[in-house]
Amino acid sequence: MVQNRTGLWALDSLPHVVIVGGGFGGLTAARAFRHAPVRVTLVDRSNHHLFQPLLYQVATAGLSSSEIASPIRFILHRQKNVQILLAEVSAIDLNARTIKMREHESVEMSYDYLILATGVQTNYFGNDTWAQYALGLKSLDDALEIRRRVLLAFEEAERESALTRRERLLTFVVIGGGPTGVEMAGALSELSRFALAHDFKAIDPKATRIVLIEMSDRILSTFSPNLSEKAVKQLGELGVHVRTGTRVTGIDAGGVHLDNELIPATIVVWGAGGRATPLAQGLGVPLDRGGRIIVEPDCSIPGHAEAFAIGDTAAFLHQGGQPLPGVSPVALQQARYTARNIVRAVRGQARAAAFRYVDKGSMATIGRSRAIAEMGRLKLSGLLAWWAWLVVHLFFLIGFRNRFGVLCDWTYSYFTYQRGERLITAGCRLAKAPGAVAAAEGGGRVPGGDG
Amino acid sequence: MVQNRTGLWALDSLPHVVIVGGGFGGLTAARAFRHAPVRVTLVDRSNHHLFQPLLYQVATAGLSSSEIASPIRFILHRQKNVQILLAEVSAIDLNARTIKMREHESVEMSYDYLILATGVQTNYFGNDTWAQYALGLKSLDDALEIRRRVLLAFEEAERESALTRRERLLTFVVIGGGPTGVEMAGALSELSRFALAHDFKAIDPKATRIVLIEMSDRILSTFSPNLSEKAVKQLGELGVHVRTGTRVTGIDAGGVHLDNELIPATIVVWGAGGRATPLAQGLGVPLDRGGRIIVEPDCSIPGHAEAFAIGDTAAFLHQGGQPLPGVSPVALQQARYTARNIVRAVRGQARAAAFRYVDKGSMATIGRSRAIAEMGRLKLSGLLAWWAWLVVHLFFLIGFRNRFGVLCDWTYSYFTYQRGERLITAGCRLAKAPGAVAAAEGGGRVPGGDG
Repeated sequence: MVQNRTGLWALDSLPHVVIVGGGFGGLTAARAFRHAPVRVTLVDRSNHHLFQPLLYQVATAGLSSSEIASPIRFILHRQKNVQILLAEVSAIDLNARTIKMREHESVEMSYDYLILATGVQTNYFGNDTWAQYALGLKSLDDALEIRRRVLLAFEEAERESALTRRERLLTFVVIGGGPTGVEMAGALSELSRFALAHDFKAIDPKATRIVLIEMSDRILSTFSPNLSEKAVKQLGELGVHVRTGTRVTGIDAGGVHLDNELIPATIVVWGAGGRATPLAQGLGVPLDRGGRIIVEPDCSIPGHAEAFAIGDTAAFLHQGGQPLPGVSPVALQQARYTARNIVRAVRGQARAAAFRYVDKGSMATIGRSRAIAEMGRLKLSGLLAWWAWLVVHLFFLIGFRNRFGVLCDWTYSYFTYQRGERLITAGCRLAKAPGAVAAAEGGGRVPGGDG
Repeated sequence: MVQNRTGLWALDSLPHVVIVGGGFGGLTAARAFRHAPVRVTLVDRSNHHLFQPLLYQVATAGLSSSEIASPIRFILHRQKNVQILLAEVSAIDLNARTIKMREHESVEMSYDYLILATGVQTNYFGNDTWAQYALGLKSLDDALEIRRRVLLAFEEAERESALTRRERLLTFVVIGGGPTGVEMAGALSELSRFALAHDFKAIDPKATRIVLIEMSDRILSTFSPNLSEKAVKQLGELGVHVRTGTRVTGIDAGGVHLDNELIPATIVVWGAGGRATPLAQGLGVPLDRGGRIIVEPDCSIPGHAEAFAIGDTAAFLHQGGQPLPGVSPVALQQARYTARNIVRAVRGQARAAAFRYVDKGSMATIGRSRAIAEMGRLKLSGLLAWWAWLVVHLFFLIGFRNRFGVLCDWTYSYFTYQRGERLITAGCRLAKAPGAVAAAEGGGRVPGGDG
């Protein structure tokens, strides 16, 4: 066990709740224990809580990392009964009620209650070789890597004299027509059409080709069909080519392969769904196809009344048969419900009835002044939906400082069409060509890195 | 040659000025050609201009990258006669008047006038094995890596139960008592004493040991001796141990070796001077010990009246025999002087007299409300010097947006003692132990990275 500074934290006799994951679910659960007679350990392999709905804005140079992420330690620093550990949980023994961390393989940490909230990771549906060409968008590192590659593509195109190469450098393909894909495609278009429009001499960034590919017959399929149509129209206004009913058969150095076609491209963003993190697989409990734990009506793991899975880690099938969607309100509501139930158990009270998700609606943004929103029967699109999106997202951003910074940046971008985060960093200041480019061109144009 | 979009930039008949480097010197030179009858190509291997005097604040989580860096393209986007290329210059032929870029080895770009302003890189005085343990502070990547390692050290210490290991994790050594070293030591102290003070349960960040090592007999030796003393006093108030007259004999996984002593440490920052970038070495012209080109009184390279070296790339020995110091005002003044001379030459006018540096004074900050400043006979220390430092640095930050953001962040930090940029990113979200830690502990505690 991690040793505690004597005196400051003499809670060792209290029931121990271990929360794995500091996303929407884990963080909300930790906060819900604020006044509870328990001690909480929150373990996350990243030091920050990430406001994932705005991650695409980091990837497209609109916001900085620190505007959408905040150290978990800082968010919870006033809460005396929480200890935070930066570590990766490598194994869980549900029977012995212990977890192990990769950083301390020899040490076991025991718990009285466990909440698993580790979320999803990018899923290539078995095509793991696609990963090097098609970048997912789950972490800050993902977003910064996309930003780096996108900005480098423009820079390389400025140096490039061959027309076909230049066209390939300036073709961006986004795979997956869910909210992430739609937001990403819209933001990439705005970056090239407005922010970069006048900064190059040899190329015209406005000629950048952005293609959004969706396998099913419409994008944003969780919304009503007429809102999907409005989204396609709004994307069209931004110059995004939307291709529905289109299946990706391969992704390699040359670009994106469809059934009878190749789209030559250097930048491919993968927004086509995720899969629960691998931790769930080692538990020996039933999982659904997405690797999520099929939980009981009270979000507990079958056979283990003191262990819970929430948010994207859980498949909750007790409300209409369909699993609840992988959106943050589900995680938030399950976190509060589960924390309340644990406190009841600690106090010797009966547990609350089965969890019930209250759907308050959903929204997706497409670009400046463009969005769609659906709340029950109320359907909005365009400017009004965009304002609703803006207010809701600012409201839920954790921490005043972030909110203020984001508001400043958005106001600045709104009036100037500029983007504040157009920096190429990460590992090498040189124009390090991504794998795709290097391979396709026989390696001839790959600069030597000086690390 | 890079092809230009026809019509927009039909300047091919004008004299061609190539500027290598987009730092203070290169950028100022490019701007000085704003209304001149020349076409300018600015080549830099990084896409951004960096306000290096504030780099230590990125390294200590006070400012974000985009607050001290701005895309060169964006800074110069209104200037029609400049093209910017993101590339690394790999060779210069002073006789043929051509440059080659690593990204296009087969293509030569010819110039009529050349300005070399590539600055310095970290110099370990021949001890290149020290580089992996002692991080330099020259680029954004350097700063982000220091930030990552420092924040990880606290996180690891929180997980660590052995006292000696914990003490080693929380010992930070800064080598070099110039402005960079002093600022870095002060900022590290404030980070641990204020920003992180209440965020940990098992460790007390205030117990972090910060040691500043200087080989000569006083720190900030370019200032008057009594200001050096005041700086030592102010550093002492922040808990920094200043050790002058101390020679580093080795740096390895265990820590920093002095003549008869080992300081066990995980974080070592190297602020002990730089060396001109290697480009100068291939020119076949006389260099000084620091690899800098010994220039003529008009900043031209001996034997090549149309090629100039400015700022840290040049050793200018014509003013008092001593080379001019490696500070930004020298680069700025040389840039304006050289640009003016090139315009005169283009217009067939006589060149201006020898360059003369006007020293307007210098300042160094130590921490919140602590600094020293010296302008001619005027010597300041403490709060007043700190305000002077603040105003000057805000004034010279390029771009309104940055200035406003920095002011917001500084105001926030001033009143809350918090730091907005405490995010661990870069390549791996896990607690990837830096080489130093891994090796020293036999690799046993190195977590497996998942890339």
